[in-house]
Amino acid sequence: GYATIDNHREIRNGYPEVIYCAGKTVDQVRGIAEYMITRNNNILATRATKEMYEALLEVCPQAKYNELGRVITVQVRPVEETESYIAIVAAGTSDLPVVEEAYETARILGNKVEKVTDVGVAGIHRLMARMDFIRNAKVIVVVAGMEGALASVVGGLVDKPVIAVPTSVGYGASFGGLSALLTMLNSCASGISVVNIDNGFGAAYNASIINKL
Amino acid sequence: GYATIDNHREIRNGYPEVIYCAGKTVDQVRGIAEYMITRNNNILATRATKEMYEALLEVCPQAKYNELGRVITVQVRPVEETESYIAIVAAGTSDLPVVEEAYETARILGNKVEKVTDVGVAGIHRLMARMDFIRNAKVIVVVAGMEGALASVVGGLVDKPVIAVPTSVGYGASFGGLSALLTMLNSCASGISVVNIDNGFGAAYNASIINKL
Amino acid sequence: GYATIDNHREIRNGYPEVIYCAGKTVDQVRGIAEYMITRNNNILATRATKEMYEALLEVCPQAKYNELGRVITVQVRPVEETESYIAIVAAGTSDLPVVEEAYETARILGNKVEKVTDVGVAGIHRLMARMDFIRNAKVIVVVAGMEGALASVVGGLVDKPVIAVPTSVGYGASFGGLSALLTMLNSCASGISVVNIDNGFGAAYNASIINKL
Amino acid sequence: GYATIDNHREIRNGYPEVIYCAGKTVDQVRGIAEYMITRNNNILATRATKEMYEALLEVCPQAKYNELGRVITVQVRPVEETESYIAIVAAGTSDLPVVEEAYETARILGNKVEKVTDVGVAGIHRLMARMDFIRNAKVIVVVAGMEGALASVVGGLVDKPVIAVPTSVGYGASFGGLSALLTMLNSCASGISVVNIDNGFGAAYNASIINKL
Amino acid sequence: GYATIDNHREIRNGYPEVIYCAGKTVDQVRGIAEYMITRNNNILATRATKEMYEALLEVCPQAKYNELGRVITVQVRPVEETESYIAIVAAGTSDLPVVEEAYETARILGNKVEKVTDVGVAGIHRLMARMDFIRNAKVIVVVAGMEGALASVVGGLVDKPVIAVPTSVGYGASFGGLSALLTMLNSCASGISVVNIDNGFGAAYNASIINKL
Amino acid sequence: GYATIDNHREIRNGYPEVIYCAGKTVDQVRGIAEYMITRNNNILATRATKEMYEALLEVCPQAKYNELGRVITVQVRPVEETESYIAIVAAGTSDLPVVEEAYETARILGNKVEKVTDVGVAGIHRLMARMDFIRNAKVIVVVAGMEGALASVVGGLVDKPVIAVPTSVGYGASFGGLSALLTMLNSCASGISVVNIDNGFGAAYNASIINKL
Amino acid sequence: GYATIDNHREIRNGYPEVIYCAGKTVDQVRGIAEYMITRNNNILATRATKEMYEALLEVCPQAKYNELGRVITVQVRPVEETESYIAIVAAGTSDLPVVEEAYETARILGNKVEKVTDVGVAGIHRLMARMDFIRNAKVIVVVAGMEGALASVVGGLVDKPVIAVPTSVGYGASFGGLSALLTMLNSCASGISVVNIDNGFGAAYNASIINKL
Amino acid sequence: GYATIDNHREIRNGYPEVIYCAGKTVDQVRGIAEYMITRNNNILATRATKEMYEALLEVCPQAKYNELGRVITVQVRPVEETESYIAIVAAGTSDLPVVEEAYETARILGNKVEKVTDVGVAGIHRLMARMDFIRNAKVIVVVAGMEGALASVVGGLVDKPVIAVPTSVGYGASFGGLSALLTMLNSCASGISVVNIDNGFGAAYNASIINKL
Ligand SMILES: Nc1ncnc2c1ncn2[C@@H]1O[C@H](COP(=O)(O)O)[C@@H](O)[C@H]1O
Ligand SMILES: Nc1ncnc2c1ncn2[C@@H]1O[C@H](COP(=O)(O)O)[C@@H](O)[C@H]1O
Ligand SMILES: Nc1ncnc2c1ncn2[C@@H]1O[C@H](COP(=O)(O)O)[C@@H](O)[C@H]1O
Ligand SMILES: Nc1ncnc2c1ncn2[C@@H]1O[C@H](COP(=O)(O)O)[C@@H](O)[C@H]1O
Ligand SMILES: [Mg+2]
Ligand SMILES: [Mg+2]
Ligand SMILES: [Mg+2]
Ligand SMILES: [Mg+2]
Ligand SMILES: [Mg+2]
Ligand SMILES: [Mg+2]
Ligand SMILES: [Mg+2]
Ligand SMILES: [Mg+2]
Repeated sequence: GYATIDNHREIRNGYPEVIYCAGKTVDQVRGIAEYMITRNNNILATRATKEMYEALLEVCPQAKYNELGRVITVQVRPVEETESYIAIVAAGTSDLPVVEEAYETARILGNKVEKVTDVGVAGIHRLMARMDFIRNAKVIVVVAGMEGALASVVGGLVDKPVIAVPTSVGYGASFGGLSALLTMLNSCASGISVVNIDNGFGAAYNASIINKL
Repeated sequence: GYATIDNHREIRNGYPEVIYCAGKTVDQVRGIAEYMITRNNNILATRATKEMYEALLEVCPQAKYNELGRVITVQVRPVEETESYIAIVAAGTSDLPVVEEAYETARILGNKVEKVTDVGVAGIHRLMARMDFIRNAKVIVVVAGMEGALASVVGGLVDKPVIAVPTSVGYGASFGGLSALLTMLNSCASGISVVNIDNGFGAAYNASIINKL
Repeated sequence: GYATIDNHREIRNGYPEVIYCAGKTVDQVRGIAEYMITRNNNILATRATKEMYEALLEVCPQAKYNELGRVITVQVRPVEETESYIAIVAAGTSDLPVVEEAYETARILGNKVEKVTDVGVAGIHRLMARMDFIRNAKVIVVVAGMEGALASVVGGLVDKPVIAVPTSVGYGASFGGLSALLTMLNSCASGISVVNIDNGFGAAYNASIINKL
Repeated sequence: GYATIDNHREIRNGYPEVIYCAGKTVDQVRGIAEYMITRNNNILATRATKEMYEALLEVCPQAKYNELGRVITVQVRPVEETESYIAIVAAGTSDLPVVEEAYETARILGNKVEKVTDVGVAGIHRLMARMDFIRNAKVIVVVAGMEGALASVVGGLVDKPVIAVPTSVGYGASFGGLSALLTMLNSCASGISVVNIDNGFGAAYNASIINKL
Repeated sequence: GYATIDNHREIRNGYPEVIYCAGKTVDQVRGIAEYMITRNNNILATRATKEMYEALLEVCPQAKYNELGRVITVQVRPVEETESYIAIVAAGTSDLPVVEEAYETARILGNKVEKVTDVGVAGIHRLMARMDFIRNAKVIVVVAGMEGALASVVGGLVDKPVIAVPTSVGYGASFGGLSALLTMLNSCASGISVVNIDNGFGAAYNASIINKL
Repeated sequence: GYATIDNHREIRNGYPEVIYCAGKTVDQVRGIAEYMITRNNNILATRATKEMYEALLEVCPQAKYNELGRVITVQVRPVEETESYIAIVAAGTSDLPVVEEAYETARILGNKVEKVTDVGVAGIHRLMARMDFIRNAKVIVVVAGMEGALASVVGGLVDKPVIAVPTSVGYGASFGGLSALLTMLNSCASGISVVNIDNGFGAAYNASIINKL
Repeated sequence: GYATIDNHREIRNGYPEVIYCAGKTVDQVRGIAEYMITRNNNILATRATKEMYEALLEVCPQAKYNELGRVITVQVRPVEETESYIAIVAAGTSDLPVVEEAYETARILGNKVEKVTDVGVAGIHRLMARMDFIRNAKVIVVVAGMEGALASVVGGLVDKPVIAVPTSVGYGASFGGLSALLTMLNSCASGISVVNIDNGFGAAYNASIINKL
Repeated sequence: GYATIDNHREIRNGYPEVIYCAGKTVDQVRGIAEYMITRNNNILATRATKEMYEALLEVCPQAKYNELGRVITVQVRPVEETESYIAIVAAGTSDLPVVEEAYETARILGNKVEKVTDVGVAGIHRLMARMDFIRNAKVIVVVAGMEGALASVVGGLVDKPVIAVPTSVGYGASFGGLSALLTMLNSCASGISVVNIDNGFGAAYNASIINKL
C-alpha cells in the first residue's frame, strides 16, 4: 500500500481545505464546502465571486468574504497564531487584490502577518522608511506588477527568504505580468524565489511553511 | 547616514564572497579573489573556467575546483555545519552541472547537503524509493530540465519548502529551459517557488537561508 | 480521376459526420445536420452551444447534448462497441470539459471508454491507486492543464500509447495552455504524443483509430 | 512495495536499452554501454557522435553507426520482426537525419519499416504516386520541417494513426522548428498527433508500440 | 515641391477611397463618406458594422453591405471589369469573412473574381477537382487558418503569383493566426508571398495591381 | 494518372533547377548538379559555400559564384531577357547578401534587374532622389533589416506590386529579423506582400512570375 | 534621514499630482482628488472614464475631461507656459487617443504643444509638407501604431530628441503594439528613444523635462 | 529639389561620421574611414574588432581603440566640451562594454561625461552614496542587464531625463536582454525612455542632443 502517503500535506491536522474556484460553478463550490464542513475543517476558497460567497453563507453562516482579494474563509476550528510574522510588501494600489489573497491565505494557515503597501521603487524613500519593520519578519512576500523591481531592492536589503509575486498590473509591454515575472526571475539579489503571476495564495502558502519551520 | 545597511547580507560574518565569473576575464577574477583573501573571507566563484581555477591556484593554493559544476571554492575560515540537511533532488544525468553548482554553494554556506539524482518522473519508482529520505530534509531543491515535472511530484509528497530550478537540458520545444520554467511556475502543488533557469547558486542560497532559520 | 480517394476517412461506413461549430451560426449548424440526417449518418458536433442543440432538436429529436463538453451527438445508426477500452485520465476538475469532449467523440466512434479523473500529480497516490485499471486500457488519453505533468508520470508507468491533451486551465504563466503543451512535448517518458490545446476531439479520434487496429 | 512497477516499460524483455548521448561524455556513454552488455541487452544510443561510436567499438565490436541519424545500435539478442510495417514519410532531403533516427529506433525495436522520402507538398504528385504504399502501413510517421504541411496532407488521405515530427530544418521565421510544430498541432486532419521538434526517436517509439498492438 | 507625388496611388483615377472603420465612430465613418461622395468617388469601407452601414444609407442610398465580410461598398462611378480573373481559394467555412473582404475589395477595384471555397488540405481531392479552374486565373489569393497548409499545396501546383492570407481561425496553439502566418512564410513552394493575418483587403489590393499589369 | 501535373512549375521549359544548399554536403550538391547538367538545364544554387562552388567547377566549368550572395549559377541554355525591369531596393550595406541572392535569382530566370541600395529611411532624401527610377519598374523588391520601414515608404510612393524581404540584420530587439518581418506585415501602405526573413530567392522568384505576366 | 529626497520629482512646486485611474474605483479616484485639492495642487488623471469625471465634477467643478484621451485635468494654480514647443506627430486617426493623453499631460505641465496628425509614412508627402514646422520644436513626440515606421522617418529628418510612442492600433501580427514597439527600438535613425505601448503620458512627461532644460 | 535636407543631422558641422562595423569587412571599414579622413571629419566606429583598429592605424595613426567598448575614435578636428555633464550609471561589471560604447560616443560628440558604475539595486546603498552627483547631471544614461531595475530606482530619484539601456548581460530567463528591456519599458518612474538592447551608442547620441539643448 501507499501508507507512506498518510503524512501527505493535504491531510495533516490543522491545514485548511483549499478550493480554487476559477472554472467551478456556484453549485460545485457550495457542494465541496458542505462536504468539508462535515469533516470539521477550516476552508479557504480563492478566486471566489460574491455570488459563491452568498451561496456558501447558506450552508456555513460563519463564512467571511474578502472582496478585494476574492477570498472566502471559514474558520470552524481555532488556529494557533505564530509569534514570528510574515511581511507582505507591495508596490502599488493596483496590487492590493493579490496582497489580500496572500493575506487571507497566511492568516487561515495560522500566521501573524503584517502588510506594507504602496512602497514601489519609483519613490524609494517610502520603502526605506519601513525597512526595519520588514527586516524583522521571518519571511517576506513581495508583490509587484509593471516592472516588478521592488523584489530586487527588498532582496538586497534583508537576510530573510523573499518570495516574489509578479502581478498582471500594467499595460502594453507588461504582457499580462510577463515583464514583472522576468524581472523577478533575473534578480541579482540572491535570496529571492518566484511564484506564478498573481499567485498570492502560493506565495503565502510557501511563506507559511517557512514561517513555521 | 545609511547605518541601517551595516547588517546587509554581503557584509555579515561567515558568508563567503561570491564571484559570478561569466563575462569576466581571468585577470579580473584573480584580482577580485586576491583582494578578498586579504580580508580573510571564504570565496565562492560560479561559472568559472578551468583556466580561471589555475590562475587562482597561484594566489590561493587551497582553492578547489568542481569541474562539473564549474565552481571554485576557497575555504580560509571554518564554517559550522548545520544539523538539518538540504536535499538536492535531480531528474537526470544532464542536470548534474546545476546540481553541483547548488551543492558547492550550499556547502560553503555551511549546510549539510544530501544529493538524490537520476530520479526523473518517467520512472517514478526510483523517486518513491527515496521519498522518506527526502521528506526528512528541512528544505528541498529540485533540479529538472526538459518537462520539469519532478518539482510537482516532489512538491505533492512533502510538507517542506521546495525550491525548483529549471535547467536548460533538452532540445526543440524546450526552448532553452523555458518549458521547465513554465512547468514549475504553474505547478499545482502548493509549496513550490522557482528561480532562474540553471540557477543552482540562487536555489542553494535560498535554501541555506531557510535551513538556518 | 481520383478514385483512389474513395476510401478516404470521412466517407468510410460507420464514421460519424463531424461538425466543428465554433464560428458557425445556429442556422448553419442546423442546416448541415439536416442534410446529414437525410444520408442516415451519425452526427458529432463539437464546441456547440445550448442554442444550437435546441435548434437541432427540432430537426432530429434523438439529438443528445453533453453540456459540460459542449458536444451534440445524434445516433441514427447503431455503432458496434469495441471490447478493448480507451482510458481517459485527467488531472483536475477544471479539465472536465475537455474530458467530456473526448468521451463523446470516442463513444460515437464506437469505443468502450473509461474515465479516471482528478488524479493530478500534486497528490500522486490518487493516480497510483488507479494504475492497474489504466494499464489495462489499449490506449490512454491524458488530459491536464497548468503544468501538465500528469502525462509524463502516466507515460512512465504504462507500455501503451499515450495521447496527451494540454488544456487551457490555469492563469498567469500558463499562457492559455502553452505551459502544459510544452511540458507534454518535452516529456522524457517515451510513448507520448500530443494534440492541440483543449483538443479532446482530436485525442479521442486518434485513440479510436488505435483502439480499432 | 512497488511490485506493480515490475512490468515497467524499460525492464520488459526484448526492449533495448536507450542512451540519450547529448550532454554525456564519451567515457560516460562507453561506461553505460559496457554495463548494459553484461546484461545481454540490445542497445540504442541516439544523438551519438562518431567519437562515441569508436569508443563503443572497443567494448562491443558488433556496434553499428548510422552517421546521418547519429545513432549507434548494438544487437546482441535477436529481435522478431513485425509483419505490418511502419511508413516513415518525409518532406525533404534535409529532414533525413530525423528520418534515420526514427528508422534505427523502429528497427531495433523489431519493426518492419518503409521509408518514403522527398515527397514534400510543394510538388504533391510525388506524394500521390506513393499513397497506396503509405496507406497500407499500420502506422505512419511524417517528418517535415519549414512549414510542415505534409502531415496534414497525409493525414487527410489515410485512416491510420499519423505521428508527426516537426524538424528544425528552415531559417528565419521557422524559428528552429516552431513553425512546423505549430502547423502540425493545428492540423485540420483528424488522426494526427505530434512529438517534439527533431524527435525521430520518440515518434518511432510511439509507432512501434502501436505497430505491435 | 513634391509634385512627383501627384501620381500617388490614392489619388489615381478610378481607385475607390478606402476607409478602415476599426476604431472609428459611426459619425466619423459617415462624415468621411459624405465628403467622399461630393468628390464623386467610389467608396470601400472595411471592418464596418451594420450600424455604420445604416448610418451611411442615409447619405448614400446606393451603399451595399456585405455582412459576412463586414464591408460597405458605394459605387457611384462605373468600374471597367478585367478580362483575366483573380481566384480566391479558401480552406474552410470559418475563413469566409476574410474571403468576402477580399472579394468586395477586388470587385470595387474592377476585377473579375472567382471564389473556390471549402477546399482545405485535409481532403485534398476537393482541391484537385478545381485545380484547372484555379490555374487559369492570372493571380491567386489563398485564404486559410489553423495550419494554413493550403497555400503551399496550391503554390506547388500553379505558375501564377500566389498571395497568401493567414486567418485567425483556430484555437489553442493557433495563437490567433500566428500558426498559419508562420506556415505561409516558411512555405517551400516558391511563388508565395504573405500579408497580415485576416487581411483580405491587402491581399485583394495586391492581386488587383498584379491582375491589371 | 496525374497528367495534369505536366504543366507543373518545376518542369516548365526555361526555368532553372534550384538547389537549396543549406544542410547539404559538398558531395550531394555536386551530385545533383552533375545530374542536372546532363538534362541541359540552367542551375541556380543558393546558400552555397565557396567549397561547393569549387567542387562544382570540376563538373561544370562555366559555373559562376556570387560570393556576397552565396549563389552559384550555371547557364548552359540562353535565357531571353525581359524588357520591363525588377527594381531591388535595399536599406543598408549589411543587407547586400540578400540583395545579391535576389539579383542572381532574378537574372537566371531571365529578368532585367536594377539595384538601388543604401537608401534606408533614416536619410530619406537618398530614396527620394531615386524614386522616379523605382516607379518605372514593373515590380519592386524591397530589402531591409533592423526596423524594416523602407517597405512602407516605398509602398506609399508607387502603384506597382512591392515584395518585401525582411533581413536578419540588427541586434538586440531585432530578434533575428522578427522586428523587420512584423513591420512589413503591418505596413499601412496597401500593395505590399512579404516573404520569409532573408529570403532573397523567394522574393525574386515571385517578382519574376509577375514581371513576365 | 532621507532629507536628500526633499527635491524628489513628485514634490517639486508646480508639478501636478498624477492619478493613474486604471484599476481604481470611481470612489477611490474621487477620494484621492478631493485630498489633493486641499493641497491646492493641479491634477492630472489618466485612463479615466466619463463616470469618474462626473464624480470628480462634484468635488472640483473646474475639472475638464478630454474624452478621446480619457484624461481629466484640474487646474487650480496657474502654470507658466514655455516659449519653445513640443511637437506631437502622429501617423493615423486611430492613434488620436494616445496623442490626446500626451497633449493634456504636456499642457498641464506647462508646455506649449503643437499637434501634427495623420501624417503616416504610407503617404510621405503629408509629412514632408509639415517638416519645417516639426524641425522647429525643441523636442518631438512621435505616435504610431501598426508598423510604427514614422519614428524612423522623422528621426532621420531632425536634430532634436525624438520620443517614440508605439500604439496598440492594428490587428493580427501587430500583436497589441509589439510590432510598432520593436520597429521603434530598432530604428536606424539615431536620436530616438522609446516608451511603453500607448504611453502618451510617459512620452509627454519626458518631453516636458527636456523642453524645460 | 530636396534642399530642405541640407540641414540633415549627418551633414552638420562638428558631428563625427559614424561607422557601424558589425557585418562589415576589415577592408570596407578601412575604406570608409580613409574617405572620411579626406573630408577632415572626426570618426566614430562602433562594434569594431581589434583587427579593424589595426587596419585603420595604417591610414590614420591618431586612431584610438577602446577595447572593452569595441569603439574606434579618430579625432582630427577639436571638439568643444560642454559644461554640463552626462552621467552614465551602470549596474554591474559585465555592463561595462556598453558603458564604454556610450562613453566614447558621448565624448567624441563633445560632451563632458561622468561614469558611476557597479551600483546595482541589489546593494542600494552604493547608489545612494552617489545620488547627489548623479542628480547634478543634465541628462542621465542608465545601463543595466539581468532585471534592469536600476533605471526605475534612479528615475524615481531625479528630475532629469533618464535614457535607459538594457543589456544582454544575464542567462536563462533574461532571454538576451528581453527581461531588462521589458523592465525599463514598464517602469513606474515617469521620466524614463528606452533604447535597444546593448545600444550604448544610441543612448549617448540621444543624451548628447539633450545635453546640448
Ligand atoms: N533522441 C531522443 N529524444 C528524446 N528522448 C530520448 C532520445 N533518445 C533517448 N531518449 C529517452 O531518454 C532516455 C534515456 O535518458 P538517459 O537516462 O539520460 O540516457 C531513454 O529512456 C529515452 O526515453
Ligand atoms: N482591412 C484593412 N486592413 C488593413 N488596411 C486597411 C484595411 N482597410 C483599409 N486599409 C488601409 O487603411 C487606409 C485607410 O485608413 P484610414 O485613413 O485610417 O481610414 C486605406 O488607404 C488602406 O490602405
Ligand atoms: N497613463 C499612464 N501610463 C503610465 N504611467 C502613468 C500613467 N498615468 C500616470 N502614471 C504614473 O502613475 C503614477 C500614479 O500611480 P498611482 O499612485 O497608482 O495613482 C504617477 O506618478 C505617474 O508616474
Ligand atoms: N552601435 C550602434 N547601434 C545602433 N546604431 C548604430 C551603432 N553605431 C552606429 N549606428 C548607426 O549606424 C549608422 C551607420 O550605419 P552604416 O551606414 O551601416 O555604417 C550611423 O549613422 C548610426 O546612426
Ligand atoms: Mg501609488
Ligand atoms: Mg536517466
Ligand atoms: Mg482536484
Ligand atoms: Mg526535395
Ligand atoms: Mg469544411
Ligand atoms: Mg548606410
Ligand atoms: Mg489616415
Ligand atoms: Mg558588482
